[in-house]
Amino acid sequence: MGGYGWISFTTDYGTFDGFVAACHGSIARVSPGTRVIDVTHHVPPADVSRGAAVLAQTAPYLPPSVHLAVVDPGVGTTRRGVVLATPNGLLVGPDNGLLIWAADALGGITAAYELDNKDWVLGDVSRTFHGRDLFAPVAARLAAGADPAEAGPAVDPSSLTRLPDPVVTIGDGWIEAEVLTVDRFGNVQLAAEGSALSGLGTELMVNGGVRARRGATFADVNVGELLVFADSADRVAIAVNNGRAVVLLSVVPGDMVRIAAR
Amino acid sequence: MGGYGWISFTTDYGTFDGFVAACHGSIARVSPGTRVIDVTHHVPPADVSRGAAVLAQTAPYLPPSVHLAVVDPGVGTTRRGVVLATPNGLLVGPDNGLLIWAADALGGITAAYELDNKDWVLGDVSRTFHGRDLFAPVAARLAAGADPAEAGPAVDPSSLTRLPDPVVTIGDGWIEAEVLTVDRFGNVQLAAEGSALSGLGTELMVNGGVRARRGATFADVNVGELLVFADSADRVAIAVNNGRAVVLLSVVPGDMVRIAAR
Amino acid sequence: MGGYGWISFTTDYGTFDGFVAACHGSIARVSPGTRVIDVTHHVPPADVSRGAAVLAQTAPYLPPSVHLAVVDPGVGTTRRGVVLATPNGLLVGPDNGLLIWAADALGGITAAYELDNKDWVLGDVSRTFHGRDLFAPVAARLAAGADPAEAGPAVDPSSLTRLPDPVVTIGDGWIEAEVLTVDRFGNVQLAAEGSALSGLGTELMVNGGVRARRGATFADVNVGELLVFADSADRVAIAVNNGRAVVLLSVVPGDMVRIAAR
Repeated sequence: MGGYGWISFTTDYGTFDGFVAACHGSIARVSPGTRVIDVTHHVPPADVSRGAAVLAQTAPYLPPSVHLAVVDPGVGTTRRGVVLATPNGLLVGPDNGLLIWAADALGGITAAYELDNKDWVLGDVSRTFHGRDLFAPVAARLAAGADPAEAGPAVDPSSLTRLPDPVVTIGDGWIEAEVLTVDRFGNVQLAAEGSALSGLGTELMVNGGVRARRGATFADVNVGELLVFADSADRVAIAVNNGRAVVLLSVVPGDMVRIAAR
Repeated sequence: MGGYGWISFTTDYGTFDGFVAACHGSIARVSPGTRVIDVTHHVPPADVSRGAAVLAQTAPYLPPSVHLAVVDPGVGTTRRGVVLATPNGLLVGPDNGLLIWAADALGGITAAYELDNKDWVLGDVSRTFHGRDLFAPVAARLAAGADPAEAGPAVDPSSLTRLPDPVVTIGDGWIEAEVLTVDRFGNVQLAAEGSALSGLGTELMVNGGVRARRGATFADVNVGELLVFADSADRVAIAVNNGRAVVLLSVVPGDMVRIAAR
Repeated sequence: MGGYGWISFTTDYGTFDGFVAACHGSIARVSPGTRVIDVTHHVPPADVSRGAAVLAQTAPYLPPSVHLAVVDPGVGTTRRGVVLATPNGLLVGPDNGLLIWAADALGGITAAYELDNKDWVLGDVSRTFHGRDLFAPVAARLAAGADPAEAGPAVDPSSLTRLPDPVVTIGDGWIEAEVLTVDRFGNVQLAAEGSALSGLGTELMVNGGVRARRGATFADVNVGELLVFADSADRVAIAVNNGRAVVLLSVVPGDMVRIAAR
């Protein structure tokens, strides 16, 4: 096994405590040659679907990696830890839905294993910090070239925990879709894929009352106007040129947004 | 001397300015092969004891390293810069108590030296940014294999500045201890070691009025209930399953908390 | 061409989304051996002059690098992407003024090229995320040793977009200068160079009503008192020993501050 040169790392640990560093330490101790790309550690605490979304949208742009992700409100319970194999990399983390969207984005799950190899952990595994003691060491083993099948018993992929699919409905001249994320710039990303825009015209109405225009980049509308576009993750998104769409629309992730011709 | 493959890096610099990057630059210029693990740069400005606590709890989980830490309200005064040797790594920073708890956690101080080697600094040392000009270059020299004794004259470890020990009192069926840190998840960590829990039962009372239960992980209590446990740094800690103990208890670091049987 | 061992990376992307990681991914895919020093990703959204200032003050302290910077409100418009060559490193980013102050700090622009080489991008270049698809891959190519002249057609440096120079006026016994930045510690940095202090005495007045004293480091004034000094970037700055000058002065970047003898 050639292993992987990189581990990507996504958590809700924040960067004010030493949690992320302790996991970096576990990786360095097990596989000193592996490098780490931090995806984000600012997933809101225990927000599994936010973690799943950011990982799924980032992983395809990384080099072949072991994708380590820990947003794990069930730590210390009987929830499983798993490694998922895909055609374009491995994923390691809790079996709570966090990894599945990224696995789909990387080509689908070709095999899954429950983490059960006592030789792959570091120290006495704490009941509350599996990132440091279990998941990071396992990811490092895999990056160093260990066979995922040695992580533990095979798991039927259909038995893995899945998050509910975000709601997307596409009609004749309209889209209704759940808000997936709101980014740093206040852009509102919907769950609908970019291709859903093909059935809409140029002059649009958002949520029945806000005028918008379809375009490809922010400057396609005037300053302060609403733009509907396919974003860099190929999702339908809403932005304001030189402004914050989230403020204009007053939505949060999970809310439904309707876009229709006007 | 073999040196160290890693430097760990802890500051109160934040990540909005370029201070952390300038220090990374100093390390790269002096010792290009050394890698850096950032512990945190979000220690509250000038909060030496917070910096000392996070470093002490993280350093033991890192590979053998030079631990560089700068929380330094006395920069530019006559306070010394020091390097401390321990059985499990070196520490570099100001002599203001920041390094001592980590030195203890790494096995104790075996030697200490005052930073006084003009050949080890970079450029004209500024009066206000010793991280960039002094501490980072020294850490990089040491990581590259320089002998700590060449950093400057030996210092009697008993002359090093120490922080006051946090208050911990253990009685018959009760603990009183200072809040050491509050983490990202709102978990309240006390200064008492995990072993202090052995004298307590399962049904507990916190600060006289809040019911709690002893357990090992969050799910050992019902959602919303208070858990008392030994955390991943082996300190007594208080959490709420699916909630934030810090809100329920309304405490800040330095406050006293009493846990007793009920 | 030997290339560069490091890429420095400055953006307004924040660290809550996966944008920074996706760019790290692009770099790793194009030039796996290159290492990245993150300057900051917390430039306020679209604040080009703040990005320019932090990069200019940090770049001189980094090892020879390709400096990648993306604060790019005009993404997707006809604004050019450019690479600037200096005696001490390359800069890559949008032609909106972001790179110029850093180029000056690195010794001045010796050549400039417009990014126009279709073989240097990754994937289908999105209209809204040139950091991932264009700028990071180009920076990685250059770090790997590609000739900047192959990036695209030469650009006359005098045609590059410049930010307005911050206002600095130096009189007989007084300075008036624009606030350039306010750092993590509340220190207020002016656009005037440190040498501007030479014409002032020790006892000073700020903005007509606040007493201050000239010194070299924070402890040169009493706790709570105002210090005027040349900071670690050799700019005139105002600090409060053990306090936050920004609160005392109530200024923001762009405001004018007057320092005069009293």
